[in-house]
Amino acid sequence: MYTYKTTVKLHDTDAAGVLFFANYFRLAHEAYETFMASIGYDFYTVIHEADFLVLIVHAEADFKTPLHVGDRVTIEMQTSRLGRSSFTLVYNLKNEAGEVVATASSVHAVIKKETVKPISMPRTLREQLEQLHPRE
Amino acid sequence: MYTYKTTVKLHDTDAAGVLFFANYFRLAHEAYETFMASIGYDFYTVIHEADFLVLIVHAEADFKTPLHVGDRVTIEMQTSRLGRSSFTLVYNLKNEAGEVVATASSVHAVIKKETVKPISMPRTLREQLEQLHPRE
Amino acid sequence: MYTYKTTVKLHDTDAAGVLFFANYFRLAHEAYETFMASIGYDFYTVIHEADFLVLIVHAEADFKTPLHVGDRVTIEMQTSRLGRSSFTLVYNLKNEAGEVVATASSVHAVIKKETVKPISMPRTLREQLEQLHPRE
Amino acid sequence: MYTYKTTVKLHDTDAAGVLFFANYFRLAHEAYETFMASIGYDFYTVIHEADFLVLIVHAEADFKTPLHVGDRVTIEMQTSRLGRSSFTLVYNLKNEAGEVVATASSVHAVIKKETVKPISMPRTLREQLEQLHPRE
Repeated sequence: MYTYKTTVKLHDTDAAGVLFFANYFRLAHEAYETFMASIGYDFYTVIHEADFLVLIVHAEADFKTPLHVGDRVTIEMQTSRLGRSSFTLVYNLKNEAGEVVATASSVHAVIKKETVKPISMPRTLREQLEQLHPRE
Repeated sequence: MYTYKTTVKLHDTDAAGVLFFANYFRLAHEAYETFMASIGYDFYTVIHEADFLVLIVHAEADFKTPLHVGDRVTIEMQTSRLGRSSFTLVYNLKNEAGEVVATASSVHAVIKKETVKPISMPRTLREQLEQLHPRE
Repeated sequence: MYTYKTTVKLHDTDAAGVLFFANYFRLAHEAYETFMASIGYDFYTVIHEADFLVLIVHAEADFKTPLHVGDRVTIEMQTSRLGRSSFTLVYNLKNEAGEVVATASSVHAVIKKETVKPISMPRTLREQLEQLHPRE
Repeated sequence: MYTYKTTVKLHDTDAAGVLFFANYFRLAHEAYETFMASIGYDFYTVIHEADFLVLIVHAEADFKTPLHVGDRVTIEMQTSRLGRSSFTLVYNLKNEAGEVVATASSVHAVIKKETVKPISMPRTLREQLEQLHPRE
């Protein structure tokens, strides 16, 4: 499990006083890109130098409890599916009391930049995603 | 079917050169809030004066084709489910060629502000959502 | 004078109930990029094909009256200074009553991508910016 | 001097590959709101419970060096002016090499919510802002 902590900023909230629903996805993505950087796939390098790209092809979330400006959020990220050229990440967003306030998932496809076709993901990426895969 | 048109702005895109995935939800929500305003439920009034709120409790999207800065997007919104106190909206996002570049959906729950409990949605809202419901 | 109209969206606002201050700059930039596209410098082409870039090197704004979700905003943009390789744009943001709710300005530098040095701006850009320059 | 550290996220960048100019203001504001929370004026309480509000009435920034996704940023914030009911904050944004990549400032006005008129700022706020005021 990969853990990322952040705080809801004023610009993340909306006039209803709560974290705007689309920004839960932004926070989840922050967990993902911080994880990727931590295993050697920082986005700058992937975007500008790698021969592959990782596209998000699906995303979804369930919103259980509103979050407000200043709320500390812990995001726990796991791999829920690991294919040859794609994978699914799941996220639990927890408040300071440890309650799950939202869950989310994202499906990622690895493509070759040149051909825009699916390719096997890099070995290190696979190995690291496997580490985030809960075992029965 | 409710139709909303917009253009991808530079601030909607990211360093990968495309519309950031969470911002598809932002665009879909623009369609939703513009629709709501058009039927008399502008968000300012709902947030500050109504005795009910409409919460988004689930959202999901499939991303098929990347969008770039300057791309014109047409969002077609329909009601896919209409309950007593909740409803589901579906969105087709189309590019200028008329191709569906993404689909999305959002589940909305109507609650009473005072009790934070589900309540029957206002009659006008129900009637208007019914208008967006495709008939077999 | 170039005029751009938009509406404050829920995601533009914050928990204080008003347009988040940094998003005034986002709206002003929407006016700028829409103008640029209208004179043949759409950002996709500039970013991916042109040999020059236009960088924003300074921006400022005065906020006079708060804006709320659903507020219609008219942005009037003019050229206030036109140099060889740089220019300044000024923006009046008006509400539906025609009152100026904010003013902003941005200083833009034209650089050659290859050398990252200032270069004379393209002739068409200069001519079009001159059209937005109020004469005494 | 108050110091805030963050990392440029993918959603902060744009298709030109760099931090979108308006998002420098967002990052500066993160420094400001984190400081405010640290001295007992967390925004949730200020927005929902205090009898005063702090409005941003002016903001400006100079952008010297582009920032990219993954770049670590240190924001050093100081009080540059401290009036009875208003104050000015200045921000130096530095990259990992310690170079100033941007400077910004924001002018804040303290108003009474009820009357929307300027009032003397709370004593603790004044004292804390004074701590951030460089002495000759």
